[in-house]
Amino acid sequence: MESQQLDVNAAAPAPTAAATGRSERAKWLLTCPDPPAPWHELFTSIKDTVLPHAKTKHPRPNRPLLFLQGLFPILKWGRNYKATKFKNDLLAGLTLASLCIPQSIGYANLAKVDPQYGLYTSVVPPLVYAVMGSSREIAIGPVAVVSLLLSAMISKVVDPSADPATYLRTVFTVTFFTGSFQALFGLFRLGFLVDFLSHAALVGFMGGAAIVIGLQQLKGLLGITHFTSKTDAISVLHAVVKAFHQQWSPLNSVLGCSFLIFILITRFIGQRKRKLFWLPAMAPLLSVILSTLIVYLTKADRHGIKIVKHFKGGLNPISVHELTFGGPHVGEAAKIGLICALIALTEAIAVGRSFASIKGYHLDGNKEMVAMGFMNIIGSLTSCYAATGSFSRTAVNYSAGCETVVSNIVMAITVMICLLFFTKLLYYTPLAILASIILSALPGLIDLNEAYNIWKVDKLDFMVCLAAFFGVLFGSVEIGLLVAVVISFGKIIVSSIKPSTEVLGRLPGTELFCNILQYPAATKPSGILITRINSGTICFANASFILERILRSAADENNKQESGKGRLQVLVLDMTNVMNIDTSGIHALEELHQKLIARGIQLALVNPKWQVITKMKAAKFVEKIGAEWVFLSIGDAVDASLALKMTC
Amino acid sequence: MESQQLDVNAAAPAPTAAATGRSERAKWLLTCPDPPAPWHELFTSIKDTVLPHAKTKHPRPNRPLLFLQGLFPILKWGRNYKATKFKNDLLAGLTLASLCIPQSIGYANLAKVDPQYGLYTSVVPPLVYAVMGSSREIAIGPVAVVSLLLSAMISKVVDPSADPATYLRTVFTVTFFTGSFQALFGLFRLGFLVDFLSHAALVGFMGGAAIVIGLQQLKGLLGITHFTSKTDAISVLHAVVKAFHQQWSPLNSVLGCSFLIFILITRFIGQRKRKLFWLPAMAPLLSVILSTLIVYLTKADRHGIKIVKHFKGGLNPISVHELTFGGPHVGEAAKIGLICALIALTEAIAVGRSFASIKGYHLDGNKEMVAMGFMNIIGSLTSCYAATGSFSRTAVNYSAGCETVVSNIVMAITVMICLLFFTKLLYYTPLAILASIILSALPGLIDLNEAYNIWKVDKLDFMVCLAAFFGVLFGSVEIGLLVAVVISFGKIIVSSIKPSTEVLGRLPGTELFCNILQYPAATKPSGILITRINSGTICFANASFILERILRSAADENNKQESGKGRLQVLVLDMTNVMNIDTSGIHALEELHQKLIARGIQLALVNPKWQVITKMKAAKFVEKIGAEWVFLSIGDAVDASLALKMTC
Repeated sequence: MESQQLDVNAAAPAPTAAATGRSERAKWLLTCPDPPAPWHELFTSIKDTVLPHAKTKHPRPNRPLLFLQGLFPILKWGRNYKATKFKNDLLAGLTLASLCIPQSIGYANLAKVDPQYGLYTSVVPPLVYAVMGSSREIAIGPVAVVSLLLSAMISKVVDPSADPATYLRTVFTVTFFTGSFQALFGLFRLGFLVDFLSHAALVGFMGGAAIVIGLQQLKGLLGITHFTSKTDAISVLHAVVKAFHQQWSPLNSVLGCSFLIFILITRFIGQRKRKLFWLPAMAPLLSVILSTLIVYLTKADRHGIKIVKHFKGGLNPISVHELTFGGPHVGEAAKIGLICALIALTEAIAVGRSFASIKGYHLDGNKEMVAMGFMNIIGSLTSCYAATGSFSRTAVNYSAGCETVVSNIVMAITVMICLLFFTKLLYYTPLAILASIILSALPGLIDLNEAYNIWKVDKLDFMVCLAAFFGVLFGSVEIGLLVAVVISFGKIIVSSIKPSTEVLGRLPGTELFCNILQYPAATKPSGILITRINSGTICFANASFILERILRSAADENNKQESGKGRLQVLVLDMTNVMNIDTSGIHALEELHQKLIARGIQLALVNPKWQVITKMKAAKFVEKIGAEWVFLSIGDAVDASLALKMTC
Repeated sequence: MESQQLDVNAAAPAPTAAATGRSERAKWLLTCPDPPAPWHELFTSIKDTVLPHAKTKHPRPNRPLLFLQGLFPILKWGRNYKATKFKNDLLAGLTLASLCIPQSIGYANLAKVDPQYGLYTSVVPPLVYAVMGSSREIAIGPVAVVSLLLSAMISKVVDPSADPATYLRTVFTVTFFTGSFQALFGLFRLGFLVDFLSHAALVGFMGGAAIVIGLQQLKGLLGITHFTSKTDAISVLHAVVKAFHQQWSPLNSVLGCSFLIFILITRFIGQRKRKLFWLPAMAPLLSVILSTLIVYLTKADRHGIKIVKHFKGGLNPISVHELTFGGPHVGEAAKIGLICALIALTEAIAVGRSFASIKGYHLDGNKEMVAMGFMNIIGSLTSCYAATGSFSRTAVNYSAGCETVVSNIVMAITVMICLLFFTKLLYYTPLAILASIILSALPGLIDLNEAYNIWKVDKLDFMVCLAAFFGVLFGSVEIGLLVAVVISFGKIIVSSIKPSTEVLGRLPGTELFCNILQYPAATKPSGILITRINSGTICFANASFILERILRSAADENNKQESGKGRLQVLVLDMTNVMNIDTSGIHALEELHQKLIARGIQLALVNPKWQVITKMKAAKFVEKIGAEWVFLSIGDAVDASLALKMTC
């Protein structure tokens, strides 16, 4: 009590003056101007989303050039491009190509299309991105997770082994939808859609997907002919165990595992000695060349080693006529396209942003989406499937010292040359090597460290992470995604429905009122209960819950105080956190006021926000509790309550 | 600036002492105890929900009695029941029965079952409720909206005219599910589920349903034989127009309309003279008797007047064997049961609570749900369909001076007597009269006044109200409900995804910092930008949006200040409103800090809440920005920033 009186005296010399100050401050609150109308807010928000730079005016003559430079950043940086930069880009591009060629063939295998389509996807999309994209390090091409997504979801609609032609057409159609969605998201500035997968969900999803992809590689590694088309861990392991008894050919495993060990050793060396970064990057290509030679020389394919065999060379054929928009699967294709678009964007933007922040430049998410969208649309017309930014290859590109996106152009040209002249050489490449190359890229997708960080920081977030992980692993890719998104949004809704309330006390020597549990030093004034509603909104979904909570804490306080000093006289409700209220919320406050009055307790409202005080005035609630019981600060409310107590 | 320095001096005599006070206060924040673990919160929340009174201990011997009294409140108030009370209840019960008999027959017609089922529903459920329920005024029986819901949704599964027996079985099964869901909600204390329909949505839904019910009555009022089974306004009006050309019999309309006018006039008189309350309550029965006599005497049924005809008398037959849980429609029946359970509860609890608050007693929502649930379960076993509390009849019961739920028992016995002896007399009752009785009850469901209040207080809430109204009117009952629930929850999610930020300034002569738009008197300190995040949580869904907003306002401020006084040096982020943060949110704050540092701006955090500061410490974010830049109040942060400016 002493410290409180001290404060009252410090704030104003006489009690009457204090009262004047209080009512003066309350007047500011009660006579505030009207907040902007909801239409206005909605309009501003849409305008901000669609036309973010409406305010910034450029001098006339530059505008078309600036627009073109915005759409094609190459026009901007291309002017200052120099030979020294090209030397670095050339080296990085060649390193990238050596990793990209075997990976592309492996991912095509994962996507259940012929190997050349993986290589096609490493030609056109990187070239389009080089013209439209703004990231300098990102390596464009097929990636493991998107390849898995495509094959897992399209397989349910069209069987790739029974009808490969229709399957391929569906893949191109899905790629077209993927690109269209991405471009639309970018054009309408819906970048925030990518945020719908929370960080934790993404970590879990990627980890689960990596294990699923790894399990799929058992087919190639063990040389199994008949495999399940399902992706969940149980079906795959069941198929593997079944195959073990029937058709296992151990030669494949020996070959695959030995080269997997070779690749992993080179990576270990590369991590130890930074100068040897090219060793792990070259190892996959080296493995392909070596193993192909071994198979060719020993005729091992006649002894059970599975090989790539058919491999069509030549440049990307046009595939416009392959797109089908009228068939029975078009709705399904659009749905798969939407999911692929979101996953591909999430991965690409995460990759692009993390390297951009290392080099200290900003990446506009919406512009990137437009670039990705056009690269996939044009890809779908030239026999490519959905491409995005690959994490492992981007890291190699960065370590190899790339300066600009020209390294992607170098890579694309190298892959093109390979398609034109060297495809015949890949006839004898064993499938087990492709599996081991994919397997070697997977550990990068499983981020145990980050999962541990999430556990440390937020246990509920970790639940989301686990749910996504197990959803992908034991359900399917879509189930994993769905579970993650539903839990993430469910968390938001649950925290809105069942908000907490806290009891506040005054910190000694200050005018600050804080949670007495968080700050054990805080003291409660007697006869007054100060509660704060920890919710951004009081609405239909939580109004009666909040009402019940406050009434219960008032009853608890009354019981406590009756046995002790005195009766509870004033309930101070701190509305600082409440940004908005709806009609159900106002009804609940009216009920609270009536019930408190019936128990002889006065209700005092503190610091209602702009929208809240305006709605309270409109609903005549301020009149009901009396304008003299609305305060700007808790200190004012407590002083007024103490003054009331003295007069009682 | 002057007023700020004044405050600094007022708070502490010397600047060094002020700095010590600041760090002392910040220490409270940084060394607060750990918040309860999420498991603990979850466990407490579940315990609170399932066992709310675990703390209160009763002396041993009373416990079983108290439990029984809790389940059957009649054991409690029955002891003190006196003859004087019974006189009032008898009068109220008889008045209620006179209104209930014609309404029940009409609602049975609306539910597309034979008239006696409406009367059955006015016998068993009121008796069960009388034993288990705690409301004293509520009148139990069939109501318009639930009857419409049943017929509209079950008609889609089973055609009532083609297969009336299966239809009736489905009605009983749905009623059983309705009761089971209600009892389960009550037992598991899921009362909050009723809140999922916001007040605004309910007003719109009831208004739309009233008009839909009114349109359905055109069939009876115009004497149309072939009518549409759809409920939307366009289909019904189309059917009416078509019928006008073919099979309209004007005698029905004349009879119906004249009695409708009679009922409305008696209601008008009843509203003017409170003592004549029994007149509008008796009018429907009087209309039925009069019109039946007229038809019987004039043989008008041979001239096109449609009559009730078949009417089976006798008490409720047992219908246990009618319940079907194995058929093809059981899933659909459960779904319809769930919707009916929620709507029926919402109406009953709204009715019960509003009259309980007039008489000043408290109604436990969960206990009411259990009572409603058992009344419908037992009802479904005795040929009743879903019953709930009727608003119009409860009002009549209250005006007639009921004292306890005994009036419901009187009503049930009266209806029983009617079923036993007088059903034959109702053979000639014209259908048009039933239609006019239902029509006369509808205006009570359309609450234009409340809709206007909602418009005045919250424009977005009014949109929800309109959406529910038009959804019911032009779509279907389910579409209306679905639209209302989706918009209501969508509002919560959207406000979480795109939260606003506000710029704060100091109110003159105080240590309070408020929104400078809401309080034009507030002044911004130069070189310092104080922003507050208006969101209860920083999470994956809004983290990048918030980041972008803050960076943009910092850039705007910098542009403004560069042209004016000086560069922006400190960005003070007020986290008062942020109750929780997830890993995505912390990543966003880290990015914010990095980008601000790159622009030479210091980030200062103010008043992070319990969960937030704990997670920030776990994620080592506090170390990154420096513990000296975390403050308990904005005043401290501003003082420290000003001190920094002086030393610069």
